[in-house]
Formats: sequence, structure tokens, C-alpha cells
Amino acid sequence: MSKILLTGFEPFGGEKVNPSELAVKELAGKTISGLEVVTGVIPVVTKKCIDETVKLIEEYSPVAVINVGQAGGRMEISVEKVAINVKDYRIPDNEGNQLRYAPVVEDGPAAYFATIPVEKIVDNMVENVVPSSVSYTAGTYCCNEVFYGVSSYIHTNNLKILNGFIHIPFILEQAAGAKPPRPSMSLDTIVKGLEIAIDTVAEYIRQ
Amino acid sequence: MSKILLTGFEPFGGEKVNPSELAVKELAGKTISGLEVVTGVIPVVTKKCIDETVKLIEEYSPVAVINVGQAGGRMEISVEKVAINVKDYRIPDNEGNQLRYAPVVEDGPAAYFATIPVEKIVDNMVENVVPSSVSYTAGTYCCNEVFYGVSSYIHTNNLKILNGFIHIPFILEQAAGAKPPRPSMSLDTIVKGLEIAIDTVAEYIRQ
Amino acid sequence: MSKILLTGFEPFGGEKVNPSELAVKELAGKTISGLEVVTGVIPVVTKKCIDETVKLIEEYSPVAVINVGQAGGRMEISVEKVAINVKDYRIPDNEGNQLRYAPVVEDGPAAYFATIPVEKIVDNMVENVVPSSVSYTAGTYCCNEVFYGVSSYIHTNNLKILNGFIHIPFILEQAAGAKPPRPSMSLDTIVKGLEIAIDTVAEYIRQ
Amino acid sequence: MSKILLTGFEPFGGEKVNPSELAVKELAGKTISGLEVVTGVIPVVTKKCIDETVKLIEEYSPVAVINVGQAGGRMEISVEKVAINVKDYRIPDNEGNQLRYAPVVEDGPAAYFATIPVEKIVDNMVENVVPSSVSYTAGTYCCNEVFYGVSSYIHTNNLKILNGFIHIPFILEQAAGAKPPRPSMSLDTIVKGLEIAIDTVAEYIRQ
Repeated sequence: MSKILLTGFEPFGGEKVNPSELAVKELAGKTISGLEVVTGVIPVVTKKCIDETVKLIEEYSPVAVINVGQAGGRMEISVEKVAINVKDYRIPDNEGNQLRYAPVVEDGPAAYFATIPVEKIVDNMVENVVPSSVSYTAGTYCCNEVFYGVSSYIHTNNLKILNGFIHIPFILEQAAGAKPPRPSMSLDTIVKGLEIAIDTVAEYIRQ
Repeated sequence: MSKILLTGFEPFGGEKVNPSELAVKELAGKTISGLEVVTGVIPVVTKKCIDETVKLIEEYSPVAVINVGQAGGRMEISVEKVAINVKDYRIPDNEGNQLRYAPVVEDGPAAYFATIPVEKIVDNMVENVVPSSVSYTAGTYCCNEVFYGVSSYIHTNNLKILNGFIHIPFILEQAAGAKPPRPSMSLDTIVKGLEIAIDTVAEYIRQ
Repeated sequence: MSKILLTGFEPFGGEKVNPSELAVKELAGKTISGLEVVTGVIPVVTKKCIDETVKLIEEYSPVAVINVGQAGGRMEISVEKVAINVKDYRIPDNEGNQLRYAPVVEDGPAAYFATIPVEKIVDNMVENVVPSSVSYTAGTYCCNEVFYGVSSYIHTNNLKILNGFIHIPFILEQAAGAKPPRPSMSLDTIVKGLEIAIDTVAEYIRQ
Repeated sequence: MSKILLTGFEPFGGEKVNPSELAVKELAGKTISGLEVVTGVIPVVTKKCIDETVKLIEEYSPVAVINVGQAGGRMEISVEKVAINVKDYRIPDNEGNQLRYAPVVEDGPAAYFATIPVEKIVDNMVENVVPSSVSYTAGTYCCNEVFYGVSSYIHTNNLKILNGFIHIPFILEQAAGAKPPRPSMSLDTIVKGLEIAIDTVAEYIRQ
């Protein structure tokens, strides 16, 4: 059976959990629309986030890869359209590196677009009452970095793998008691959204 | 059995639903910690919102009243501490009245505090992973008006009824597809929060 | 000549300056529409903020008092309508006190309204291109505390002094380089707004 | 003398003015650090915004082009780093076109980076107390379109012209009286920021 790789991130920025880790673990081992969901949790560390994803790709040979990450402060699931060749960290990564104004890949192109059907995924989420939108900026932290790095790896090696990045909000556990208040989404809704994304990718591949 | 009255509002401001109406309907007829939940849906119309609540109080003789309303844009359930003697509507009510800089009750005091245990309700919600906070402004629309009006009615008539106001966010249905994005909370989480509020009031009364 | 007392606050919350201190110092000694502007800088410390303002009132016998304070995060000048009998500090004051859920004045009324012409001040600011609005919450920190405390002092002693509170945004110096970004307003615009407020109070007194 | 081309946009989205038009007109004809400032006002219309800028480039043969645009809701001047090959309009342009999910240039690369010294411009603005930051998203409206289109024109024709895009906030006139409140910046501060940008470009060219 064809596989789809979903990755989450370890917690960072002082958070106790990372909802992306929790969400992909809920989906691990499931079969959705004929795709087997394989998963991994990658570190919030420059370069290693890319290397770990590449290892998982080499291990599983998936037809599609979706990296999932926490976007604290966002109100909706955002399906990212574009990865840019910039590392500009507002806070250090989990090993203390704080890149400023640096490229992800020296001499790489300015950006890659996601190759998963971004707009259709969002349409399907909204239709199923999961707040969601197309996002045109994945930031300049490890989320954008892994998105750009994986895009570059797939493109440079001429692989037939679809890839993209999905940002998810804080979950209730991270919002309850937070000062100032934080927008949040229940883990159930997030997992439902990711299932819709996988289903949409499966349908896109079949066509 | 002692009764607690919960009211929701009709939809307003171009929305198709009002989550406060949906939430209180889910709780109608339930018994929570020894309190029977009676409910009503009140109009988003100046004065009538108060009159309708007073009618429901006279009909049910509850030991406590909580008016519930939609606070679009808020990220958490907010348990209101204070009702002020001001009507200053940003948009017209459902009958086209747009009050500006007007008192709710001519010659009334500047404000009333809620008499339900506001801080304890918030603590209990947060402990149960429902994002929530104490709010010190219920706005100057019908929500604040009914809160002030009911407080005034209870105080003027020397009734032994606890009262308060709880603001709830948009639900997923109102956020999915919205431009610009809206913070939201699932109806399940909202209903859970209101159950905790009722349970906290019940415990407070028993003490 | 009749006097109007303007107070600013000392810096707090890690800021190097408090724009309210800078703004009132620019106005000190000026005569605006027949009112002599006398000023003082008060501490961001519970009770002392009230005591210091009362001392200044006793020293100057002004016809009106406007306490001015920084409201970091607000985009406009906000002229406060209502002071509530609550101290609920999100951060400690400058002497380390962090009050939670406490009254400003034991057994005081829930709230006082400003007695300066709030709505007219806002109208005049907007007409003169100073972004401004009526605010119905002065928060629950020292700003609200001094506003409530001074209102209580004036009311309890039956004094013929108008009083109110004006919140001002961060100035450019506090926003340049801030991460995440902060809304700001130039000190010039803030001072212009306060002059309009004084002028409006002067006209109100003459009528 | 070498020229630098600054363009502003016509008003759009129901606004009476566009601060970018007002700001570039204040700078028209000035000489800053040895660069003569030439200016133009371009339409908020797909394709025409690019065509008009290209005409101005052909007319003036500048050494650098900075398109300036209004970013309502932003709190700071943002110097844009990246233009993406996407048109996805939230509102129609001034001739009623509302592109969705369309490329600016068919088969163009995903993105271009600005070639003006973005990071240095921001550093210099912040040092001179002008709130400013590097932005990694210029949106998907005419601002991004002209930025991408001009980048593509320069790149495709192998021209030695630096280019970039600067987003500016609403001015006081657009914020005074607005409901809900809007962040704003005085036109003086915006013009000062643009002068710093030109000066930084001039110094960069000399090196």
C-alpha cells in the first residue's frame, strides 16, 4: 500500500507539548483513502529537522510528505503554499542556535511552492467545518526550514513525492490559563483536519 | 428541586446562528449538581432582552440566573465581573435601535458586580482545560444591558437570586471560511464550560 | 487662574520611559483656554498612586484632575468612562505587590463614572485627527486604581472637582525594534490630544 | 545625477487617500545622499500596476526602484524581503478584477528576493526611532504583484537596477474615528522612514 509521511515537531519555546506531535501520533498506522499513514517526530533544531525528515523519507518511500507544525497565535489550520530560502529565528532553536538572515540552502532558489493540492485541502476542510485557510507565509523558523529543505531535497533528487506543510493552532491545554489569552483549537478538530488533508491528497494522486 | 435559569440570545449582526442559543438548548432540562436547568432564548433588542429575562425569572423562580451571549472575536469563555450603566451600540439591535451614550436604567448606579462566584468558575474551567478568564468589561451592547438590567431588577426587588453573565466565542461553524480569520471554540467545549459554571454555582449555594 | 491637574506615571513593566510622564511634562506650566496646567508624576504602586494624587489635589486645588497612563497595546488614545472597584494585577507593581481580586475601596460602590465630558473630548480629538475613542474598561491595574481612588476621594468629600482618566499608547521609542511589533503613536500627537482634552474641559466648565 | 524611482498607489478598498501616494509626493524632486527622487502613482489594478512601473523605469532609467504600498492593519513600516508568484485577492482591484490562486507570471519562479539592502534599511530605521521590521510576506494583492512583476522585468531583461517594496501603515487621518480601531503612523514618520530607506540604498550603491 502507498504511504503518506506525516511529521510532528518536539515541543519548543517553553511549551510542555507540541500539538503537531500529538496530532500525528493519533493518525499513526491508520489507513485513509488507501494511504497508510506513517509518522515521525522531528527536532526543533536547524538542519536536523531536515535530516530527520529525509531519513524518514528514505525509510518509508512515501508518495507524499506533510510536515506539521505548531503556529502559536494562529486561529485556524493554515495550509502553507510557499517555503522561502530564509532562516531568521525570533527565538533560539532547541539546541540554542539562533540564525538571522541566513539561507536554508546556499544558492537555492528564493522559494518552492507546496506540491500537495493546497487550495483543495482548504476547501475540503472548510466544507467539513474545520476553520482553515491558505497561508502564504510559513514564517522563518524551523517550520519554514523543514518545508524548504524537504522541497529542495525532492526537487534536487527529482523524486516523485508530493510535499507540503500544515500549521496548526495551540490546543486547549496550551490556552487554558494562558495570560494574555491565546486562540486555540481542540485536538479532535485538528486531527479531523489532517485526515481531510490526507484524504484530499489521496484523491489527488488517484486522478 | 432548585432551578438555575440559563438564557441564550437570538442571532444578530448577520450571523446565521448564535452559539449561546445552541449551547443553552443543549443544557435544557438537565440536572447538574442538584440544580434543574431551565432555559430561554431572548431577543437582541434593547429593553426586551431585560423584560424577557424578568418574565422567565418570574415564571421559574430560579435560585440563580446566568445570561449567556456571543462575544465574537474573543478567544476564551469570559465570565463577566461587572455590568455598567451604559448602552453604546456599535451596531443596531435586531429592531434597528442604535443607542449611543445612554444609561440602561436612568439614575441607576454606575455598575453592579456579578453575584455568582466569578473567579471560582474561571478557576474550575481552567482546571478542566476549558480556556476561560475573568472579564472586566461586558461591552456596551445588549449583553451588558441584560446583565445590568437583571442585576438592577434583582437588587431593586431585594431578591435572593444569584446572577451573572458569560460570554462565549464564535463556534467552528462561524469561523470556517470566515475572512479575515476568527478565533473559535467548539460547541462541545462551550457546553462543558457552562456545565462547570452551573456546578460551581451549585456548590457555592450549598456552602 | 483656575488650575487643571494632569498626572503621569513612572515607568513600569520593564519599560525605560512612561509616555504619560513625558506627555504631562510637555504641558506643565502652560495655560490652555484659561486653565493653568499643573502636573505631577505618581508611582506605579498600589495606594501610593492615589495618595500622591490626593496630595497634589490638596496642594493645587484644581477645578479638574486628569490622570494619564500608558496602555501598551492600544492603538488610540482612550478616554476612560468608568472606574471599577477592583484591583487584579497581571504583573506586580513597582514595589512588588500583586493584588488579585481585591477592592480598591472596601465597601465602595462597584464603579464611578468619569465626570469630565468623555464623549465630547473624544469627538474633539477625532475632529482634529487624533485617533481616539471612549473606553469602557480602564483595566484592573494602577491606572484603574487611581481613577477609582480619586473618584472616591472627590465623591466622599463632596468636592467640586471634575475627574477622569486618559490612556495613551506606546510612543515610537517604545515600538522601534520591539518584537513582536507594537502599535504606537508619536509623543507630539499624544500631547496634541491632551491639549484638546484640556480645552474641552475648559469649555465645559465655562458653560 | 543617478535617480531612484519611488511609486505610490492610488486609494483602494474604500479609503479616501492612500498614504503611499501622499508619502512619495512629499519626496518628489528631492535629492537624498546624491540620488534624485523621481516618483509616480500607479493604479491598484492587476497588470497595469506593473506596466505603469515599467513605463516609469523606461522613462527615468533609475538605479533603484522602491514601490511603496499601504498595509492597513500593520503597526510598523515593513520592508519586504520576498515577492511570490501568486495573485489571490481578498477584495477586487480598482477595476473589479478579483484574481484567485493565479500566478503573476505564467511559469515564473516561485519567488524573487528584494535586491535593496532590506535588513540594513530596517536597522537604520529602528536606530532613528522609526518602528520598522523585515517582512517575509507582501500579501497576494497588487502590492506583491507589482513587486514580483518588477523583479521579473528586471531579472528577465538583465538590468542593473536594485528593487524592493515597502509597506506602510494607515496614517492618522485613516485611523481617527475608525471602528474598530486601527493602528496608524503619522505621515511625517513614514516620510522620515522612506528618506532613511533611500539614504541606505544610496550608501549601498556607493560601496
